[in-house]
Amino acid sequence: MRLALLQMNPLVGDLQGNAAKISAGVRESGNKGADLVITPELALLGYPPRDLLLIEDFIKESWEVLESLAGELKEAPPVLLGLAEENPSQEGRPLFNTAVLLDRGRVGPRFRKSLLPTYDVFDEDRYFEPAKGSQILEFRGLKLGVTVCEDVWNDRQFWPHPRYHADPTECFAREGVGLMVNLSASPFSVGKQERRERMLSAMAARSRLQLAYINLVGGNDDLVFDGRSSFFNDRGELLARGRGFEEDLLLVDLDPPRGEVAEDDFRPEAEVWRALVLGTKDYAAKCGFKKAVVGLSGGVDSSLTAAVAAEALGPEAVLGVLMPSPFSSQGSIDDALTLAGNLRIRTLTLPIHELMAAFEESLAPAFQGFPRDVTEENIQARIRGNLLMSISNKHGSLLLTTGNKSELAVGYCTLYGDMSGGLAVISDVPKTMIYRVSAWLNQARGREVIPPGVLTKPPSAELRPDQTDQDSLPPYDLLDRIIRLHIEERRSAREIVKAGFEGETVREVLRLVRLAEFKRKQAAPGLKVTDRAFGTGWRMPIARR
Amino acid sequence: MRLALLQMNPLVGDLQGNAAKISAGVRESGNKGADLVITPELALLGYPPRDLLLIEDFIKESWEVLESLAGELKEAPPVLLGLAEENPSQEGRPLFNTAVLLDRGRVGPRFRKSLLPTYDVFDEDRYFEPAKGSQILEFRGLKLGVTVCEDVWNDRQFWPHPRYHADPTECFAREGVGLMVNLSASPFSVGKQERRERMLSAMAARSRLQLAYINLVGGNDDLVFDGRSSFFNDRGELLARGRGFEEDLLLVDLDPPRGEVAEDDFRPEAEVWRALVLGTKDYAAKCGFKKAVVGLSGGVDSSLTAAVAAEALGPEAVLGVLMPSPFSSQGSIDDALTLAGNLRIRTLTLPIHELMAAFEESLAPAFQGFPRDVTEENIQARIRGNLLMSISNKHGSLLLTTGNKSELAVGYCTLYGDMSGGLAVISDVPKTMIYRVSAWLNQARGREVIPPGVLTKPPSAELRPDQTDQDSLPPYDLLDRIIRLHIEERRSAREIVKAGFEGETVREVLRLVRLAEFKRKQAAPGLKVTDRAFGTGWRMPIARR
Repeated sequence: MRLALLQMNPLVGDLQGNAAKISAGVRESGNKGADLVITPELALLGYPPRDLLLIEDFIKESWEVLESLAGELKEAPPVLLGLAEENPSQEGRPLFNTAVLLDRGRVGPRFRKSLLPTYDVFDEDRYFEPAKGSQILEFRGLKLGVTVCEDVWNDRQFWPHPRYHADPTECFAREGVGLMVNLSASPFSVGKQERRERMLSAMAARSRLQLAYINLVGGNDDLVFDGRSSFFNDRGELLARGRGFEEDLLLVDLDPPRGEVAEDDFRPEAEVWRALVLGTKDYAAKCGFKKAVVGLSGGVDSSLTAAVAAEALGPEAVLGVLMPSPFSSQGSIDDALTLAGNLRIRTLTLPIHELMAAFEESLAPAFQGFPRDVTEENIQARIRGNLLMSISNKHGSLLLTTGNKSELAVGYCTLYGDMSGGLAVISDVPKTMIYRVSAWLNQARGREVIPPGVLTKPPSAELRPDQTDQDSLPPYDLLDRIIRLHIEERRSAREIVKAGFEGETVREVLRLVRLAEFKRKQAAPGLKVTDRAFGTGWRMPIARR
Repeated sequence: MRLALLQMNPLVGDLQGNAAKISAGVRESGNKGADLVITPELALLGYPPRDLLLIEDFIKESWEVLESLAGELKEAPPVLLGLAEENPSQEGRPLFNTAVLLDRGRVGPRFRKSLLPTYDVFDEDRYFEPAKGSQILEFRGLKLGVTVCEDVWNDRQFWPHPRYHADPTECFAREGVGLMVNLSASPFSVGKQERRERMLSAMAARSRLQLAYINLVGGNDDLVFDGRSSFFNDRGELLARGRGFEEDLLLVDLDPPRGEVAEDDFRPEAEVWRALVLGTKDYAAKCGFKKAVVGLSGGVDSSLTAAVAAEALGPEAVLGVLMPSPFSSQGSIDDALTLAGNLRIRTLTLPIHELMAAFEESLAPAFQGFPRDVTEENIQARIRGNLLMSISNKHGSLLLTTGNKSELAVGYCTLYGDMSGGLAVISDVPKTMIYRVSAWLNQARGREVIPPGVLTKPPSAELRPDQTDQDSLPPYDLLDRIIRLHIEERRSAREIVKAGFEGETVREVLRLVRLAEFKRKQAAPGLKVTDRAFGTGWRMPIARR
């Protein structure tokens, strides 16, 4: 038997478009001799559909679309397809997260997700009722254990602290299942694929089952799905893997088990780069933007953001805007122009000296008797934000925000200023990783993309004379380690101090993290690349001690 | 036996402060002859603690504070207190949502929440493991059924579609319970208390149990808790109710059952007003602000916002800023000044003509060849946003955003412009309700607070000559009805049309709602007053069809 794993990039809510994509994939699979096609989780709806799921009529419409899709695919191979299903009971959550078999023009049996994640970015208990009992499809003499995403993430042998009280895969070996399939929408983070493969391999080997994992691909708001659908034989050996960060149709033969492992690059810098490019490309396309605008300061953050934009949308679609003030150094202006030349993107220079003076004058009645402080710096940043948004509005371009995770963590950024934009490309990338990715990029391209000056000068917001980031913040390598312990590892101040960091620094950093919550609440969505990003996986109160 | 229901206003994360508040309340209860004190849900942590719950050491610290509180209250009456408890099992969610008895200096038995809400603004499955089995406290010869908030919201006789498969209150009558207590953190929405009382009364009557419901009070980010703790006898009669929107210590005698029902006002306008005032007051205080600044346009939205601010913080703490442009009518300027006079707040007038000219000039190179469009209107709004944020930064004042729910729904607002601010006071109040509350306020005060001109002139953003909102939007009474069906009732376009609305209008409104998602994602937190607010209870994808 030949399986086709349809690693597709749906658009959330686009029922017709996603159905057309599935239809085309199934036909192509048929042409390539597939006996069964499998899609990712909720493929017909796109993932994550979030509160679209609460619109009953949207679910109803999706089943109307499903019916016509089934008819259309009458002559094509059967397909096991992910979507949401109304819970017919008068009790419990409104829906099931379901895989349904379309076979010979009919909508056939349904298999439901048992484990509903509610950690990090997930909210599935908000919508779905868990399946009860084993979900097994008998198909052409083969027993398939059908699982959806999280269902394979509760292996009690693998995890020290399982989150659920059941493992829906445990029954499969006992019930004579030969192949486990997993319809997934598993978001990317650095190193995630290696973890997935270790876990799935262990599961396949221990259960003595073949295992096919079909993952979504594409950017959807803050989440990037990296594809890399995989197939393991019953000794846990990886026999096939789909491409990373792009659509793929992965063919797998079961008897004897056989497939192809696409080349990949698991270096963190390469992973981050590819995730940012795909996330930016898809966010723009799925929101209807063909062009992007980026403010260029000559610093490493805006440089890397512009490089991502040029790769994602093409250099001709990207406009870099320089907005020098009296505090901008000539070196930074030169670096920005060099970068733009390296990327072959257009630039526009709009000095802000006069706008700064105009604000100062207009605000004189309000500022009387107050000394200069950070307010004047914020005004500059907000003038730039206004200029960039004006260009975005006038040109119909997507404004890309250039802030990194380190500064978003401690609030070293101006709300409505440099935080302005529709997508925060690098807001989950710590500053130290920004440097690593930039250096990797120059090396991978075999030429200078990010100018060397950008990588060597001390980071500065250039909002007052001779300012550097380290006037206000600990060195970034230290800051990033503290932030990681707090954000990703959920350590308190006293635990981080116990781990060997200096008390005053730790308490100050965590105080800044707390104070910046109101800024983050209004931040643009940012592409998640770490195990915990600010955004849907970080839900902190603002008003608190 | 005498119960004391400690209707308190905790600060999220302030373990010491909340413990001190509980301690004072318990002592006062003792002085008033109470035999048992009961707090709201998670009172020691504040509600909602959100991802603070994921910091293990925070939970550990809360139990250290609990131990000293127990010691401190050795001579005081016992208290049943809400907090989070580590799940000792190696399996499942990390915590329980618990009520613990402090008695004679010891930390006594624990009772756990069974039903964990994950709808609307709630995410409790993210943190908590559900209780198993009945939660009954034997106390001085009485059996108390202990429930936490949601535990009483799954009455299968009351609700047509129960969300959970168990009702933890069902066993109580069978097990000889005489009194059910419910530690709650139930957020306000208009009409909610009447629903609560109907439901709790029915439950008490049917189970033949006395029922004491202890609710939190106070504003916490987007949520306002309205207090109104209540006591019902075993025939379901309301015998006691705490004050609305303020702290209270409600004493209830059980034998014979007796208490006091505080006067209240359930008119929607009065409820909205009180919720906004408390929400604004607490957000400011809990974030450390003593002063507020509001942009005054002379329109009804900014007028009502300023009135709320003056009531919440005192008129001397509020600054109204007028920022007239060439498009501002003299009538609007006069109305704004009259309003400020009525409220006795200070004003500052900062004309923006010159800043508009300066932006026009600076942007000329970027705008060459493009016609005038909405961009120029956005620039004005963003100039005002920058001025207001500058004053907020310089003066240390909280900037209050003035947008209403109707315009936030359809995106009739400028990101980083009029959407700037730390708290969106009226962003869950539909435009038609803004008018009703304003008229009610004038009547309730027995004098003109909101000037009549504000209430009678056609609404306008005054961003171009002779503009009115109705140039771009359907009339507000129509718009608000469509929005309500879509947002609160989750109806699709085709269902709303079926309900009798004109197809083109409905589709256009819903298209605008969809397009404005990226703006709402970056909106300031807004005070929830309806059954569904934009914010934590509205989780929509941005990039979608």
